[in-house]
Amino acid sequence: MNEVVFSPIGVLRTPHLRPESMPIQPAGARGVRGEALLAPHVGDGLLHLDGFSHLILLYVFHEVGPAKLRVTPFLDSQAHGVFATRAPCRPNPIGLSVVRLLGVEQDRLLLEDVDMLDGSPLLDIKPFVPSFDVPVDAVRIGWLAASHDAAEAARSDARFQHG
Amino acid sequence: MNEVVFSPIGVLRTPHLRPESMPIQPAGARGVRGEALLAPHVGDGLLHLDGFSHLILLYVFHEVGPAKLRVTPFLDSQAHGVFATRAPCRPNPIGLSVVRLLGVEQDRLLLEDVDMLDGSPLLDIKPFVPSFDVPVDAVRIGWLAASHDAAEAARSDARFQHG
Repeated sequence: MNEVVFSPIGVLRTPHLRPESMPIQPAGARGVRGEALLAPHVGDGLLHLDGFSHLILLYVFHEVGPAKLRVTPFLDSQAHGVFATRAPCRPNPIGLSVVRLLGVEQDRLLLEDVDMLDGSPLLDIKPFVPSFDVPVDAVRIGWLAASHDAAEAARSDARFQHG
Repeated sequence: MNEVVFSPIGVLRTPHLRPESMPIQPAGARGVRGEALLAPHVGDGLLHLDGFSHLILLYVFHEVGPAKLRVTPFLDSQAHGVFATRAPCRPNPIGLSVVRLLGVEQDRLLLEDVDMLDGSPLLDIKPFVPSFDVPVDAVRIGWLAASHDAAEAARSDARFQHG
């Protein structure tokens, strides 16, 4: 299959300056503000975007190393196939985040709940539409179900220690 | 900003052979079966994927024409910025669909609710995780709210005419 070439439409600005400081889970990004700075030539594509409360951003995991097909995520002791995880070290390192849109100012989007690294090249912006993007049937999340519980427990421990 | 090069990890097989025969809305794809045929070298990345009921697929809108920044969608008379739509004619023509995973067989994923064109090059597979991918706050869908009603009305009309 042929290679595909994309040109970033802008860049993401967030307080997450280094991979080590990233939130472990998107819930850890709640309330965190950031911006998308768009290239001027795509500005016309933003018309009526401000009617949507949430966006799906596709961007490049630009600081990731080589792809790995097996990954042992944080808070887990077992290896999983990379496609069964959200780890950045994917064959095509494309990140996906659902964020809140707070405002549109010329070529700048004001965002909340950002969990991406500062400087991430932005590839696409899509409106989040529940009837397209949320399954109507029950959702199973495999190995992540146990990991969710572990993350919850870890937070609880920390709270007890520091409280 | 520099260009980014991706290599497809596989190809999507669906009954939607031509753009004209595509479902207008993802709801029109409900129950439609398809497959993802993966390149053998990424097979190791599928471990434990079968624990997830739904996947997010990222793929290339491979039959799309040149990008347009203003789009007048089907069932609408007004132009919108392309980033406020899910139209394929985007600056970076990346498609995103949430599908059901029915089974994993070697290098083949059996899928349901497929709304993509047959032959679409597959870029990435991510597990759908409600706590990552569904906003906790209320969602507004801008101009699409009115269009939803129009689509509903159009279907109702057709039903009355053919019933």
